[in-house]
Amino acid sequence: MEKATKKIDISPRAKEMPASPIRKTEPYAAEAMKKGRTVYGLNVGQPDIETPPVFFEAVRNFPANVVAYQRSQGDPAYLEALAGYYRRCGYDVSEKDIVITTGGSEAIIFAAQAATSAGDEIIVFEPFYTNYNGYAVMCGVKLAPVTTRAEDGYHLPPKEEIVGKITPRTRAILVCSPNNPTGTVLRRDEMEMLAEIALRHNLFIISDEVYREFVYEGEHTGILELPGLEDRAILMDSASKRYSVCGARIGCVVSRNEEVISACIRFGQARLCSPTIEQHGAIALTHLGESYFDKVRAEYRKRRDVTIDALQRMEGVLCHKPKGAFYVMVRLPIDDTDEFAKWMLTDFHIDNETVRVSPGAGFYATPGKGKDEVRLACVLETGRLERAMHILEEGIREYNRTHA
Amino acid sequence: MEKATKKIDISPRAKEMPASPIRKTEPYAAEAMKKGRTVYGLNVGQPDIETPPVFFEAVRNFPANVVAYQRSQGDPAYLEALAGYYRRCGYDVSEKDIVITTGGSEAIIFAAQAATSAGDEIIVFEPFYTNYNGYAVMCGVKLAPVTTRAEDGYHLPPKEEIVGKITPRTRAILVCSPNNPTGTVLRRDEMEMLAEIALRHNLFIISDEVYREFVYEGEHTGILELPGLEDRAILMDSASKRYSVCGARIGCVVSRNEEVISACIRFGQARLCSPTIEQHGAIALTHLGESYFDKVRAEYRKRRDVTIDALQRMEGVLCHKPKGAFYVMVRLPIDDTDEFAKWMLTDFHIDNETVRVSPGAGFYATPGKGKDEVRLACVLETGRLERAMHILEEGIREYNRTHA
Repeated sequence: MEKATKKIDISPRAKEMPASPIRKTEPYAAEAMKKGRTVYGLNVGQPDIETPPVFFEAVRNFPANVVAYQRSQGDPAYLEALAGYYRRCGYDVSEKDIVITTGGSEAIIFAAQAATSAGDEIIVFEPFYTNYNGYAVMCGVKLAPVTTRAEDGYHLPPKEEIVGKITPRTRAILVCSPNNPTGTVLRRDEMEMLAEIALRHNLFIISDEVYREFVYEGEHTGILELPGLEDRAILMDSASKRYSVCGARIGCVVSRNEEVISACIRFGQARLCSPTIEQHGAIALTHLGESYFDKVRAEYRKRRDVTIDALQRMEGVLCHKPKGAFYVMVRLPIDDTDEFAKWMLTDFHIDNETVRVSPGAGFYATPGKGKDEVRLACVLETGRLERAMHILEEGIREYNRTHA
Repeated sequence: MEKATKKIDISPRAKEMPASPIRKTEPYAAEAMKKGRTVYGLNVGQPDIETPPVFFEAVRNFPANVVAYQRSQGDPAYLEALAGYYRRCGYDVSEKDIVITTGGSEAIIFAAQAATSAGDEIIVFEPFYTNYNGYAVMCGVKLAPVTTRAEDGYHLPPKEEIVGKITPRTRAILVCSPNNPTGTVLRRDEMEMLAEIALRHNLFIISDEVYREFVYEGEHTGILELPGLEDRAILMDSASKRYSVCGARIGCVVSRNEEVISACIRFGQARLCSPTIEQHGAIALTHLGESYFDKVRAEYRKRRDVTIDALQRMEGVLCHKPKGAFYVMVRLPIDDTDEFAKWMLTDFHIDNETVRVSPGAGFYATPGKGKDEVRLACVLETGRLERAMHILEEGIREYNRTHA
């Protein structure tokens, strides 16, 4: 056998691929749990809200004895049910405008690849959903960050600041409202400003609206509501949070631009289909109406209030009260939240319980930003959230005492 | 509202993305079925073999009331079960060497992205699994095709021919045995030749072995069996065909190169996880033993024999008898099989039945090749296959009569 002349190296692209700040503490969390510790997972948007029983019922009654490939565009029955859901949202769309994806994750990748080639740029508002960074590496796209600030409630900066980021390679604006990680809900005039920029500068708008139903004050404005954007609005969406089926991996891309949909179908053909059984289960979810959302929304609102109240009482901690979704960006009196997040899992506990948070830097594209911030997901029931907030507070105190 | 200055265009990358030749006739097939026609689907490797009941049983007994995100690397219980399966295959691997993926499709994308950056090249043997073309576009990678020929049973050409394709940008060899679409099973000396090339020229070998158990004559040689390749062998695999669970979207990447696995986990973190319920179902599948495969293998062998016997009796039709998998590349006495495949769905039927095939050109990277070929998947039970072969034969005759 031939001898290797040198050690083989993974690609620069693979090296550049960031670990998810939401997930990179996984080994430490696993280690803590092995020691028998309870870990309150505020790092990830994984609600403990029960998945609606209609989903399990549909899965149990899957009507075939072969789990066959589904169509690449999606289960026709699910496409139809989903078109109905969007029409009830007030959007003028039909089955042909939708491609089912394997989670919202794949929806962003398909949308980004439809809009950009390698080397192109997408404008994002930081802090942003951290995995945008990973998708950008995978798609060979540069994220051009426009910073939003806690003191403005993470609302959009003036138009000039956004337009100033446009270069000849800019192809799209990526926006998320209700926002992950800030919980900010953009006003209609802000969405209209983005529409104006997109029209003037010939850009796509990719709109991440997976938290559409979770608005506690004010109103949600969807990208598909705005006139004049027919060919440049790309909605990406997901059943994950809406119905607490994160592990089902069912999302979608919606656009009235036929070429965008055709491209997404071709991307979809390469990976054959999204999970067949779980698409079947998702059909039943689309029939859940406002009473379901009223109940879930009330629960999340309570969780937000408990979290924010506790945070606002903590010394040296700053946060903005989110109006939607179930996240909050929090500034801690700590220099390096990466270290702190790890330390909470490896070195700290109260009565064998600790808290897992997501360090903030990964939610920014501008180097150096977010190092003293964390993102919290208010996804646990209120009693557990209160306990987690107490542990966090004590953890901050102890960390600063031992790291002074 | 601002007026759009010009129509917005999708990206060159999206335009370049090919429609899958396996799936692009979907609208015509749907149309035919709407008319009440039976369409024998020989286009896609979708077996009609029943999914093992243990899978459905596990899915029905999913042990939680929230369908939560699974770990990015995969369900720990499934990782453990899968490591056991590979050890029974004789491979020296453990859980830490495996990343669960959303189908074999995602496994190829992760493997390719771990090995290459945009602009790099991968050597492939054509005809090859058509979706490699799609992944290449999505990953910004160039496929460098080495042609294999029916007259050689689609075995590898001499070493010089492969080495001649290596450039400074070449980063990997992608090989598939048992092969889709040719059914060829590479001999051990062929796999060793690839290993020698990889070692000498510092390349990864990405080995697609999703048909491992479906070998009818000769023996399968897996990439993980070969010595000296610890840091450059990347196995990609899938439960889809092995257990007839194509729609479950459960695959994996296996490598003893820690950096490759670390990169795949980071790619995995960006998309959060593979389907939770279906990973749970897949655990039970790994416990199916040789008696399951003996039965399935005997069935596929019968199907292959029926298909090949019929094809060899047809006038002007040429094919090689495959030794593994369940596909066959067939040369038809037809100039443009793209047109023919469409015509079979739109214009031809016998007693309201027709056949769907995959045109051959999409299985090649070299322009012009494969236009008179089709790929057939021998996935139907023998009675239906015989009927489909009859319809195909009559279809060829009628097409040539009307298109002379």
